[in-house]
Amino acid sequence: MNAMSAVPPPSLSGSAFLRACRGEPGPHTPVWFMRQAGRSLPEYRAVRAETPMLDACRDPDLVTEITLQPVRRHGVDAAILFSDIVVPLAAAGVDLEIRPGVGPVVAKPVASLADAAALPVLEPGAVDFVDQAVRRLVVALGPTPLVGFAGAPFTLASYLIEGGPSRTHARTKALMHGEPTVWHTLCDRLAATTLEFLRVQARAGVAAVQLFDSWAGALAEADYRRFVLPHSAQVLGALADEFPDRPRIHFGVGTGELLPAMAEAGATVVGVDWRTPLDVASARIGAGVAVQGNLDPALLLAPWPVVEAQVRRVLNEGKAAPGHIFNLGHGVLPETDPEVLTRVVALVHDASTTPAT
Amino acid sequence: MNAMSAVPPPSLSGSAFLRACRGEPGPHTPVWFMRQAGRSLPEYRAVRAETPMLDACRDPDLVTEITLQPVRRHGVDAAILFSDIVVPLAAAGVDLEIRPGVGPVVAKPVASLADAAALPVLEPGAVDFVDQAVRRLVVALGPTPLVGFAGAPFTLASYLIEGGPSRTHARTKALMHGEPTVWHTLCDRLAATTLEFLRVQARAGVAAVQLFDSWAGALAEADYRRFVLPHSAQVLGALADEFPDRPRIHFGVGTGELLPAMAEAGATVVGVDWRTPLDVASARIGAGVAVQGNLDPALLLAPWPVVEAQVRRVLNEGKAAPGHIFNLGHGVLPETDPEVLTRVVALVHDASTTPAT
Repeated sequence: MNAMSAVPPPSLSGSAFLRACRGEPGPHTPVWFMRQAGRSLPEYRAVRAETPMLDACRDPDLVTEITLQPVRRHGVDAAILFSDIVVPLAAAGVDLEIRPGVGPVVAKPVASLADAAALPVLEPGAVDFVDQAVRRLVVALGPTPLVGFAGAPFTLASYLIEGGPSRTHARTKALMHGEPTVWHTLCDRLAATTLEFLRVQARAGVAAVQLFDSWAGALAEADYRRFVLPHSAQVLGALADEFPDRPRIHFGVGTGELLPAMAEAGATVVGVDWRTPLDVASARIGAGVAVQGNLDPALLLAPWPVVEAQVRRVLNEGKAAPGHIFNLGHGVLPETDPEVLTRVVALVHDASTTPAT
Repeated sequence: MNAMSAVPPPSLSGSAFLRACRGEPGPHTPVWFMRQAGRSLPEYRAVRAETPMLDACRDPDLVTEITLQPVRRHGVDAAILFSDIVVPLAAAGVDLEIRPGVGPVVAKPVASLADAAALPVLEPGAVDFVDQAVRRLVVALGPTPLVGFAGAPFTLASYLIEGGPSRTHARTKALMHGEPTVWHTLCDRLAATTLEFLRVQARAGVAAVQLFDSWAGALAEADYRRFVLPHSAQVLGALADEFPDRPRIHFGVGTGELLPAMAEAGATVVGVDWRTPLDVASARIGAGVAVQGNLDPALLLAPWPVVEAQVRRVLNEGKAAPGHIFNLGHGVLPETDPEVLTRVVALVHDASTTPAT
């Protein structure tokens, strides 16, 4: 690993993406898509054909290529580092695999205090491949900011406790309430791993980070505040101290009731799914925090006039926020026609460009 | 089918359950559990052992026995008719099956106007087995009200369009937006089937009905109001006219943003999942509508002191509503210890009993 910190080139600071993160007016509303680097693209399916997901995430050449693909194709305003939320766990030594069509499967789920206390924490040297990929990407992307990527402690904990994806997160919830010491021990260690993973990316030069707490919306706000917020704040607070110039996006699905709490955890931008209009979301979150979102990814399968009307609605509702980064309300669906994504980028730019005066 | 209408015995009208539905003070907070008649009970697993789900739903003896089991065991304040949301579709002639571990699978998904227009609508004679079961149950249950059961048009439409369960409802959303004529034709016919299914139950004597729009929470409020509310209102409005003495409970998961709209569809009680506290939910819904819910079913797997504290919290928050029916925020999980459910019933009764003066 290169121990020297890279900082994003000064030219990026005026980019539409970073201006919107900071709530400053910019040339147009920036747009990128969660999972833009993924299965909707034939060029992604081609390079991934023979390579399992975790292997792809560990190969700096592949990570670089896959991260660049949607930037080349769609002209989005930000790249998102191609990775998976379990990459730092696997790198730390947790025995897991990503099964196609299933998701992450953990060999020995966490059930006891001994299990939690024994959970390995990521050493930065174990993700050298990420350091390398980010440094290459920063050069290759030039004026396009790169967003770093990590899963938040709650979502990681759910995989570790359930042993794999869960619709109900029942064991996770039972454990957090029933054995809070086990829970907090586990999440402390996960927060340390997540923080280390994002530090590596920040040192290598990502312009911003996104902390994905994909399943946080499964929790009531009181439980979120008690069991989850402190651990996400541990990550976001340390990043704010160490890398104050890198905006922190914080996102989960179904988090209408949690938006203010997710901002309080230390976000500069809160991601909003399609269930809450951006003007409503921004009013809940309060001043000083930008929003990202929130077109329903399913609507990209509808005819273009529907997509166009919905994009214009989202842009309009986003005007109520201090800053707005156009995105979907969740990841791009694999069956999405990539040409529609390209058209959405052009429409967002066209419809939001500040007229020359 | 017996064409004569049965009405619930007059004695039921003073029951804790019906009083709470009407927003009247009662002897204690009534409690029942969604999916109380189901896999958490060994006696259920015993009687279902050899019988596929749809066959069980069509057998008046089994429906009666399974519906009674949780009333006998837990002493809940209401029984819920054992059925499945696809029962009326299958009875109308839609080619479908319920695959264990998967859910409903439809042989020919709806894709065109011709498909939608050809969807068969339920004839009441085709669900004689439900008429028979309800009439037996009303007698067997005596002072315990029986809640009727049906799936709402949106949730049924999603199964018919997707061909089975879907996490994203992507085809459904693309079709409602892209081909609104197909969508409304389909939902008109589904509303007619749902209404007929509930009419059969009301004529046979159910004391109240619950309209399950399980997946409505997948929609933004604007889409819900435009594409779903009119069809649910078609069902609930007709029931209100024809059976004004039968309360109408309306429930979906993840519906924090939709609660007022779901009340406007014609509910007398709105079911609330665990993400929105009942006092917050009731303030959103407004006066004159009771609430039902909303303990997180996953928390029943936690140790008893946790369950007890959560039950007391829900009871306390429910006091803000005009009426409160204690329930879970979604169905009982199969892995739930039934003894915990029995204890919850006793605690709800004990903690909410009006002290003698």
